Amino acid sequence: EDVKQQQQNRDTADPYSNDPPRHPALSVNSLKPFNAEPPPALLTDNYITPSALFFKRNHLPVPKVDPETYRLEIEGLPGGPVSLSLEELKSRFPKHTITATLQCAGNRRSEMNKVKTVKGLNWGIAAISNATWSGARLRDVLLYAGFGPEVAAQAKHVQFEGLDRDVTGTVYGASIPLNKAINEEGDCLLAYEMNGEALPADHGYPVRAVVPGVVGARNVKWLGKIVVSEEESKSHWQQNDYKGFSPGTDWDTVDFKSAPAIQELPIQSAITQPSEGSSVDRSMEEVTVKGYAWSGGGREVVRVDVSVDGGKTWHVANLQNSQKGQGPAPSPPPGRAWAWKLWEIAVPLPPEAQELEIVCKAVDNSYNSQPDSVAPIWNLRGVLSNAWHR
Amino acid sequence: EDVKQQQQNRDTADPYSNDPPRHPALSVNSLKPFNAEPPPALLTDNYITPSALFFKRNHLPVPKVDPETYRLEIEGLPGGPVSLSLEELKSRFPKHTITATLQCAGNRRSEMNKVKTVKGLNWGIAAISNATWSGARLRDVLLYAGFGPEVAAQAKHVQFEGLDRDVTGTVYGASIPLNKAINEEGDCLLAYEMNGEALPADHGYPVRAVVPGVVGARNVKWLGKIVVSEEESKSHWQQNDYKGFSPGTDWDTVDFKSAPAIQELPIQSAITQPSEGSSVDRSMEEVTVKGYAWSGGGREVVRVDVSVDGGKTWHVANLQNSQKGQGPAPSPPPGRAWAWKLWEIAVPLPPEAQELEIVCKAVDNSYNSQPDSVAPIWNLRGVLSNAWHR
Ligand SMILES: [Mo]
Ligand SMILES: [Mo]
Repeated sequence: EDVKQQQQNRDTADPYSNDPPRHPALSVNSLKPFNAEPPPALLTDNYITPSALFFKRNHLPVPKVDPETYRLEIEGLPGGPVSLSLEELKSRFPKHTITATLQCAGNRRSEMNKVKTVKGLNWGIAAISNATWSGARLRDVLLYAGFGPEVAAQAKHVQFEGLDRDVTGTVYGASIPLNKAINEEGDCLLAYEMNGEALPADHGYPVRAVVPGVVGARNVKWLGKIVVSEEESKSHWQQNDYKGFSPGTDWDTVDFKSAPAIQELPIQSAITQPSEGSSVDRSMEEVTVKGYAWSGGGREVVRVDVSVDGGKTWHVANLQNSQKGQGPAPSPPPGRAWAWKLWEIAVPLPPEAQELEIVCKAVDNSYNSQPDSVAPIWNLRGVLSNAWHR
Repeated sequence: EDVKQQQQNRDTADPYSNDPPRHPALSVNSLKPFNAEPPPALLTDNYITPSALFFKRNHLPVPKVDPETYRLEIEGLPGGPVSLSLEELKSRFPKHTITATLQCAGNRRSEMNKVKTVKGLNWGIAAISNATWSGARLRDVLLYAGFGPEVAAQAKHVQFEGLDRDVTGTVYGASIPLNKAINEEGDCLLAYEMNGEALPADHGYPVRAVVPGVVGARNVKWLGKIVVSEEESKSHWQQNDYKGFSPGTDWDTVDFKSAPAIQELPIQSAITQPSEGSSVDRSMEEVTVKGYAWSGGGREVVRVDVSVDGGKTWHVANLQNSQKGQGPAPSPPPGRAWAWKLWEIAVPLPPEAQELEIVCKAVDNSYNSQPDSVAPIWNLRGVLSNAWHR
């Protein structure tokens, strides 16, 4: 009895004691807060990532939220604050569904760490996943709460606050440009479903912001408050983190005000198969290479080039925008390609090669391409790591 | 008398006899049709490029258009075709002014030619220029001509036809996505002024399309017809040109249908000073480096990195968004940064260096960066040449 009681006391004292169980296949980068990614080979088995395998990036303990008493507060609009229950969010606004890929700003940070040590979780290539999200459109909710032209003349940002908080009471926060939030084609959601089910605890139950095409950090989970404002979020994560700098900038010289907060992410791709260091059967005539490709801002991936000789010659991979075996999904409207493409190619083995250096690079429909190498995009926070993957 | 008559006959037989006089400082890539760029050092002397020095990219002879009889035809909308005179275009619609950079898809093609021969004009780094453009908003004119939600449900493209034609009667043509044309934030113009004066003959007198953030080729000059359509322009330049391909694709294997027509351009920058091969005074302590940077799709350039040691170490340049000596211009709204930034930096000379390898690369606010090298983005048409400039 006493031992059990002690155990309970300890659990209650630990702010992470409410964290949910996780899938054992995840590769854990940090337990408290919980940060983990799926094994690369599993990642591209499914066009829609199963929620349990979807990468998890928590900044703080998972809050326990009672759906009966949950309120979403909306501030900064004429007529005063508005408060919505979960039931109201579900019943008062049309349910909208999108398929969108989320990527952590730190995805592939481990490759930057090899160039020179950076600050941050040592993510591999799988801090990116794709899901369907359903909820109310942020636009609809803002219009309901009083948004109109007179607000647009002043306000420039929509701030989000999470219900997750640290021991001092500081909550997670971030903001996005107002235009992204209010535009009909922005497709921002206040999502209460992921892959057709209620949001899992690790992904923001009961409500999270889904800001497609924009870095994971702005897709605020356990959403408690929305503030329409002239200013960006004052949070650490908006002001002094999640920004990109020159490789020549170090912690002594960095001026966080000099760079914009990361919103849209650049073109990205990576190889998930064969895994690094694996051997390819010499008796085979070709090697099958698989991976993912995605670009931010709704830009559609239009081509993935694959090389098995370190980038001397290139082959064009086949792109999939749906689960393998299903027909291709319809093309998204221009500027609204929120979901990744998986790709695959069988490349003939060079006759004499002892070692294959497999490389991939993607191109989006603005014809942006990935930089060749990591060092010239190295930055002290190790974000935006999108060089050719090899 | 006879000689004069013969001269006149010859001139009339030459479809290019109507072409206007040009500035002698221009570097000519092709006389008929006329294609020319300014000297790089002159290019960055002015934030707004003087019209006479603005790069000129003509596909066909300059047509002689009488402003009194000029008509702009608009087709594909309910209620039948609409025809507007120049006077109507000027008087019926509010005059809107933007500052926008135009860039030829082939800018910096000469660097691709050094890797392996490509097809196209051998442009240097100055097939890009910046001007103010005034005219009617394309959106306003389309709404006036009958555009509405029922059109949006069907149509996907806005086609442009020029009044310039080849000997067989084929006119220049191109199209843009409907969304870009109709969106309030697309800022597409039917421009009749450039830098505060009537459009010069080489730049489309009396009316051209200005599609900011989009490749020069869609900014159709001497605009005669607009067609709202379910389909892209059928023109050669839309279907079988101005598309990007893998470096592994050659003229035997190319399938023009497999790539999207270039619209938004990727992040770009180049060094205009010191010029290539010039020597730097050893007694000086630093070298001043200047250039331009621009990105397509209204993405704002947020940083330019400069190296004088071939890319080993990097320095952050100072950015200007207005004429030097004037105060900085206000920041554009998000997604509407249509104009380039000029940049400048004084880099300390490395103590032992005999030769400087000066390199620049830019980053836009989607944190897209330029690829390191030319060969991996080489393509058979030599378009989209945006590797680091060195
Ligand atoms: Mo993140
Ligand atoms: Mo062009």
